Amino acid sequence: METFPKANAVVGQSGGPTGVINASLVGVIEEVKKYPQIEKIYGAVHAVAGMVKDDFIDLSKLSKKTLETVAQSPSSAIGTSRDKPDAEYCAKILEVFKKRNIRYFFYIGGNDSANTAYILNTVADEMKFDIRSFHVPKTVDNDLLVTDHCPGYGTAAKFVSCALIGDDLDNRALTGVKIDVIMGRHAGFLTAAAALGKTRDDDGPHLVYMPERGISMDKFADDVQNVLSRLGRCVIAVSEGISDENGVTWAKKLAEQAEVDAHGNIQLSGTGALADFLAGEIKTKLKVKRVRADTFGYLQRSFPGFQSPVDVNEARLCGRYAVQLAMQHDNGSVAIKRIGNGDDYGVELFRTELKNVAEKTKPMPAEFINAEGNGVTDAFIEYAKPLTGKLPKTEFLGNYPKV
Amino acid sequence: METFPKANAVVGQSGGPTGVINASLVGVIEEVKKYPQIEKIYGAVHAVAGMVKDDFIDLSKLSKKTLETVAQSPSSAIGTSRDKPDAEYCAKILEVFKKRNIRYFFYIGGNDSANTAYILNTVADEMKFDIRSFHVPKTVDNDLLVTDHCPGYGTAAKFVSCALIGDDLDNRALTGVKIDVIMGRHAGFLTAAAALGKTRDDDGPHLVYMPERGISMDKFADDVQNVLSRLGRCVIAVSEGISDENGVTWAKKLAEQAEVDAHGNIQLSGTGALADFLAGEIKTKLKVKRVRADTFGYLQRSFPGFQSPVDVNEARLCGRYAVQLAMQHDNGSVAIKRIGNGDDYGVELFRTELKNVAEKTKPMPAEFINAEGNGVTDAFIEYAKPLTGKLPKTEFLGNYPKV
Repeated sequence: METFPKANAVVGQSGGPTGVINASLVGVIEEVKKYPQIEKIYGAVHAVAGMVKDDFIDLSKLSKKTLETVAQSPSSAIGTSRDKPDAEYCAKILEVFKKRNIRYFFYIGGNDSANTAYILNTVADEMKFDIRSFHVPKTVDNDLLVTDHCPGYGTAAKFVSCALIGDDLDNRALTGVKIDVIMGRHAGFLTAAAALGKTRDDDGPHLVYMPERGISMDKFADDVQNVLSRLGRCVIAVSEGISDENGVTWAKKLAEQAEVDAHGNIQLSGTGALADFLAGEIKTKLKVKRVRADTFGYLQRSFPGFQSPVDVNEARLCGRYAVQLAMQHDNGSVAIKRIGNGDDYGVELFRTELKNVAEKTKPMPAEFINAEGNGVTDAFIEYAKPLTGKLPKTEFLGNYPKV
Repeated sequence: METFPKANAVVGQSGGPTGVINASLVGVIEEVKKYPQIEKIYGAVHAVAGMVKDDFIDLSKLSKKTLETVAQSPSSAIGTSRDKPDAEYCAKILEVFKKRNIRYFFYIGGNDSANTAYILNTVADEMKFDIRSFHVPKTVDNDLLVTDHCPGYGTAAKFVSCALIGDDLDNRALTGVKIDVIMGRHAGFLTAAAALGKTRDDDGPHLVYMPERGISMDKFADDVQNVLSRLGRCVIAVSEGISDENGVTWAKKLAEQAEVDAHGNIQLSGTGALADFLAGEIKTKLKVKRVRADTFGYLQRSFPGFQSPVDVNEARLCGRYAVQLAMQHDNGSVAIKRIGNGDDYGVELFRTELKNVAEKTKPMPAEFINAEGNGVTDAFIEYAKPLTGKLPKTEFLGNYPKV
C-alpha cells in the first residue's frame, strides 16, 4: 500500500525462550534493513512489558558479527515476558508507538503472542492508528495451529533425542529403571522426540507417555514390568503434563497431596517432584532396586552450541518472511508448509490470519501415538526426523556375542 | 621382562559412565594389537561382575570404524558395575583368568577401580599367578589423587559450563532466582565448572557452592539477597554434596526429614528434592516470586555428540599408555602431568603406584575456592579452562543502552 507512511518498527520476543528465537530476531532485523520505508528497528526489552514502559534498544546498528552471535545464542536476547496484554494494555502500548512513530510490530512467540498481535491490531484499528502487526511462530512445544511445525521445536527435539540416546546407553551400562521427565504440559511433541534417536531394536526409551493420553498408575507399572521382563532394564520418557485415566494431571494430584502433607519448608510440588514420585511408585510397586529419575528442566530449551541446522535456518527465514509480509499485508502470522519429506525435506512459508493461531493449541495427532498410549508411531518419526538434523551415531558392545 | 608368558588381556570399565571412558577403552584395544605377546583382548561385560561370571566378549576383531564409533559414544560400551571386590572376589576372578590365560588386566575407573587393580595384583602375587594389573583413570568428579586431572572431567565440565551459559541467558530473559544442582558428592570440581563460561561482568552463575565448604541456610539466603539487590536476578550452582555449617550434608538432612514426613508414596529424598528444597527456602525467606530449580542428573555424564576434544584425546592416550606400561611394569596407575597451560597447554603421562590412587579422593584445593565459600577463584579458571575446549560464544542485547 503506497499510502502507508514511513515509520519505525519494533520487534519483541515473548513467552519461554528457545534455542532459535534469536535467529528469528536476527531474521527480522536483517530484512527490515532492506526496506527504506522502515527507518529504525527497535527492540522492546522484555517484550510487551518493555513496550508499555517505553523501554527500547536500537537494533538498527548492530554489526553483522554481533548479529551472527545473537543468531546462534539460545534464550531471548532482548528479554521476554509472560504478560498477556488486554485491550487496555495494548492501548497504552499504542500511545508509546505513536510517540515513537512505530507502525511495524513483529512479535515472536507462541499462541499468546499471536493473540497479542491480534488485539494490538484491533485496538489500533479502533484508534485509527494504522499499524502492521505480525506474529512469528516460536515454541519448543510445537503446539501452534496451521503451521506444519514451529521454529524452536527442532532444536529442543534434538536436545531431548540426544539426551535419551545418552541416557539409554547409560542405562545399558548400569541397568535398572530410568525415568526422564520432559517439557510439555498439553502437547506431547517434545516428549515424543525422545524416541527419535532409536536405532537398535532394544534401544530406549522403551515407553513414552504424552499428555494427550491418560494413564493409570497400575497400567504404568504393568508397562514397566513388561519391559523389565523382556530386557532387564527400562528407560521411560514422560511428559510433565501426563494425566491419569480420568484426565487429572499427576502434577496437580501431587500438588494437592503436598498441601495436605506440608510440614515446614519441604516442597513436594517442585520441579523434581513428578520424577521422584514416579520413581517411588516403581520402586514400591515392582520392588526394583535401581530406579533413577531426571527432570530435564530448562536445559532442553536454552542449551548453547546445540542448534538444529534445519531449525535455526527456518527460524531466521520466518523472521525475514514476517517483514516481507508486512510490506503487503496489514497483519498476519507466519506459518510453515512442508513441501517434501525425508531426503527431499523442504518448506515454504505462508501467511495465515492471526486469529487462526491465537490462543488455541494443537495436540499430537492421534496417528502419532501408538494404540497402547505408551509410545510413538512411525508416522511421528517420519514427521519429526527431518527437524533435528543428524543425530550422533553411537555404539554399545555389551550385547555382542559372548566368547 | 622377557620371561613374561604370552597371554590374553582383559579390559573393564567400572563405576559411573562418562563421556570419554569409551575413548580409553578404544585406546587400550588399539594399543594391545601392537604387541604380539598379547593374543586376545577380552572385554569384561559389566566389569568385575562379568569377570567373576566368565562373561566376556572378544574385542580383538572390531573394525576400525566400529572402534571410532565406540570412542565417540558416551557411557560404558561394555557395561559397568558398582561392585567393590575384596580378596575373595578377586581370587574368583583370577581362577577365571587362569582358565582363559588372561594375564593383562586393564581397569578403567575411579579410586575404587585402582583399589580393585591393587587387590587383584596382591592376590595374584599370593597365588603366584603372574599378572600385569593397570588402572586407567576416569571420573567426572575429577577427584583422583596424583593426576593433574581425570579423563571424563573435561567433557562433563564442558556440559556443565555450557548448561550454565544457556541457563544464565534464560535467566536474563525471564528474571528471577535459578538454582542448578550439579553432580559431586565430595569434590566440587564439576560444580565449579559452572563458572567456566562466564565472560561478562554480570554473567551467572553468581554464586557457586561446593561440598568442600559448609554453608548455613541463613548465609545462603543472604548471599542470594545480595546478588538480587545488585542485579535483580541470581543464578546459583550448587553441588549435590553441599553441607551446612556443621558439615552435615543438606541431602542427609532432607532424607531424615522425609522419614518423619512420609505419607503414602511421596518421595522427599529423590533426585529433585535438594533443588526443590533450596528453591522453597529462597521463596519463603526472601519472598521472591520467580524461583526455579533444576537438577542436571545423568545428562551431565552421558550426553552424546558433546565430547571435549582435549578430554577425548587424553582419555584415549591414557588407555594406550596403560598398555605401554604393562610391557615394562608389573602394575600401576596412569596419571597426567600438565606441562604447559593456557595457549601452551599440554600434558605428559606417567606411571604412579596403584596404592597412591586407590580409595582416596582429592577435594578442591583451597586456592580454587573464594574466601566467602560462594565462588571460584581465577586459579581454578586457569586450571580448568583448557580441559573443556572452546565454549560457545553468546550475546545478550537486553542490557544495551536504552534509546
